[in-house]
Amino acid sequence: MTDRVVNFNPGPAALPLEVLERAAREMVNFEGSGMSILEHSHRAPVYERVHQEAIALLRELLDVPASYQILLLQGGAHQQFAMVPMNLRTDVHAGDYVITGQWARKALAEARRIGPAGIAADVEQGGRFARVPRQDELVFTPGAPYLHVTSNNTLYGTQYHQFPETAGAPLVADMSSDLLSRTIDVSRFGLIYAAAQKNLGPAGVTVVIIANDLLARARTDIPEIFQYGVHARENSLYNTAPTFAIYMMRNVLQWLKAQGGVRYAEQQAQAKAALLYDLVDRYPDFYRSAIERAARSNMNVCFELPSDELNKRFVAEAAAQGMVGLKGHRIAGGVRVSLYNPVRLEHVERVVEFMEAFRQRS
Amino acid sequence: MTDRVVNFNPGPAALPLEVLERAAREMVNFEGSGMSILEHSHRAPVYERVHQEAIALLRELLDVPASYQILLLQGGAHQQFAMVPMNLRTDVHAGDYVITGQWARKALAEARRIGPAGIAADVEQGGRFARVPRQDELVFTPGAPYLHVTSNNTLYGTQYHQFPETAGAPLVADMSSDLLSRTIDVSRFGLIYAAAQKNLGPAGVTVVIIANDLLARARTDIPEIFQYGVHARENSLYNTAPTFAIYMMRNVLQWLKAQGGVRYAEQQAQAKAALLYDLVDRYPDFYRSAIERAARSNMNVCFELPSDELNKRFVAEAAAQGMVGLKGHRIAGGVRVSLYNPVRLEHVERVVEFMEAFRQRS
Repeated sequence: MTDRVVNFNPGPAALPLEVLERAAREMVNFEGSGMSILEHSHRAPVYERVHQEAIALLRELLDVPASYQILLLQGGAHQQFAMVPMNLRTDVHAGDYVITGQWARKALAEARRIGPAGIAADVEQGGRFARVPRQDELVFTPGAPYLHVTSNNTLYGTQYHQFPETAGAPLVADMSSDLLSRTIDVSRFGLIYAAAQKNLGPAGVTVVIIANDLLARARTDIPEIFQYGVHARENSLYNTAPTFAIYMMRNVLQWLKAQGGVRYAEQQAQAKAALLYDLVDRYPDFYRSAIERAARSNMNVCFELPSDELNKRFVAEAAAQGMVGLKGHRIAGGVRVSLYNPVRLEHVERVVEFMEAFRQRS
Repeated sequence: MTDRVVNFNPGPAALPLEVLERAAREMVNFEGSGMSILEHSHRAPVYERVHQEAIALLRELLDVPASYQILLLQGGAHQQFAMVPMNLRTDVHAGDYVITGQWARKALAEARRIGPAGIAADVEQGGRFARVPRQDELVFTPGAPYLHVTSNNTLYGTQYHQFPETAGAPLVADMSSDLLSRTIDVSRFGLIYAAAQKNLGPAGVTVVIIANDLLARARTDIPEIFQYGVHARENSLYNTAPTFAIYMMRNVLQWLKAQGGVRYAEQQAQAKAALLYDLVDRYPDFYRSAIERAARSNMNVCFELPSDELNKRFVAEAAAQGMVGLKGHRIAGGVRVSLYNPVRLEHVERVVEFMEAFRQRS
């Protein structure tokens, strides 16, 4: 019945078919309550249970210590670009930033509208990003309230596989595109944030995981709606929550748990990415990648074909065969294969097969 | 098949059954695209058309002049409590506020975290709100960049039926609970905002309608994510939009247009509210209302029974008969019947019948 395509969108991205089918099934009458989950008050027990389950599943799947709070907010990662420095800045400094891509640069730009912010490293070279910095390249501002990193650079396809040491400042990570796709030691971070629309669920909800000690010294001289402390105190029900987005995330988290959790997702991500990088390594003149091997992303595999015309033809022919969302970001160009959790290994096998055939006939 | 209740929730609130059924039908494969609307990129043509339609329908239904921009944002009305003064304040003043309820008070409190804000009037009396101020009660701060009003007070059930004159400052209105339920002359306002989860759609998207001249002088020294100017320039696609919430709003707007638009909604709202107020007026000792007649809300009809025990029994027995969401806000107590657009006249007739019977047997 459903003629579904294979969806390699970079975000909003593919969702598990089971999760969509469940949403369709439950849309008009949620759990016999006589109304849709969309029609329940965010303060009604029916919704509150979904809300709590979403938070509990995040805690379980990511093994979040009890000394951390999990918040469900709105505004995407971009709003966190502003909220992080608004909450965590000192009176003289916003924070230090590692620049590994366009999103990190945007985060820095927003911080600088809040206060002075430092650049711990900037690995842009010739207008492109092909690696993450070595530890010994990082320069810290004394007294900076945090070091901000972007764990995965969706645009160029680089990823931190080992997070940096920070010389004492809490590590803040934008994990919008790899949270839940890799095992992490949450206790190494002061704050982690992620927009949902890659591995977590649909657009419209943002997860913030914050250490209690950081929360305790977060600023209270900003509007309450932007205070992490207020949202933590109110269990992310300070104002009306984006209830449907959280419901969908809860369902994605249940699905992920049933699949085998984050450890399974990590193995899958590595296996999926390896299939593509193997091909890139086999035909480096046809599927060209400038990304340093140690920084290759398991979430976004980017490469360029020998000409723009070939890039375009690749994307168009793949789409004609039911594989969509492969066009590189307009800034980076080329091809991008996004491999978020709902993308299955057999989807990647299909694209690899296509890549073999495309190369041969081109 | 669907055993749906009659939903008088104050928000998130009832949605038209047709809109929910359509969402269920389109969930897995949207318009033959092979994926859900939830899985489309916010920059893909399939989604962008939905986005544009939502904005165009708002413009058409509310007769928004070409000299106004319509923005689709996140964070609810509460985020607008902060964004309005962040964008519109002068260097010495945030804005003037008319205090007609708890939400107005919260808006003022957020403004005061941005800059000094004035109180043009405060009609709280004995801890309650029962009216809106007369024009001659308003006191304006010279040079205040705007006058802020809350058009409908969901908590106590009061509503502005005639908006105040402002002595020159742009009028800013929080219309979260009555936008699209009444005809308005948009040109009288500098800015209108509304969270969607009453008359517009589900929680997760917020509409802002702003005059170009106000937009032109909105501040640019705040993070871009909070700048109305940035969102206007980028057609509300500066960052990832809450795509599903906007899709649902688009569908609610199409439904409203098919019903007869805002004029029809207004007639219905008046007719629904009249049924309830007639009963309140007929049995003023049993269904007690302290609200000044001229300020009675057509969206939230609030009353109290002679005892708390009766209030509780009323709500419980109504729920047992399939009419839910009637409990008053915890601050106001009593009973509240919310009459947003998807609540049909026959739903209100059912509750009126119940009220007659309940009174007789109590």
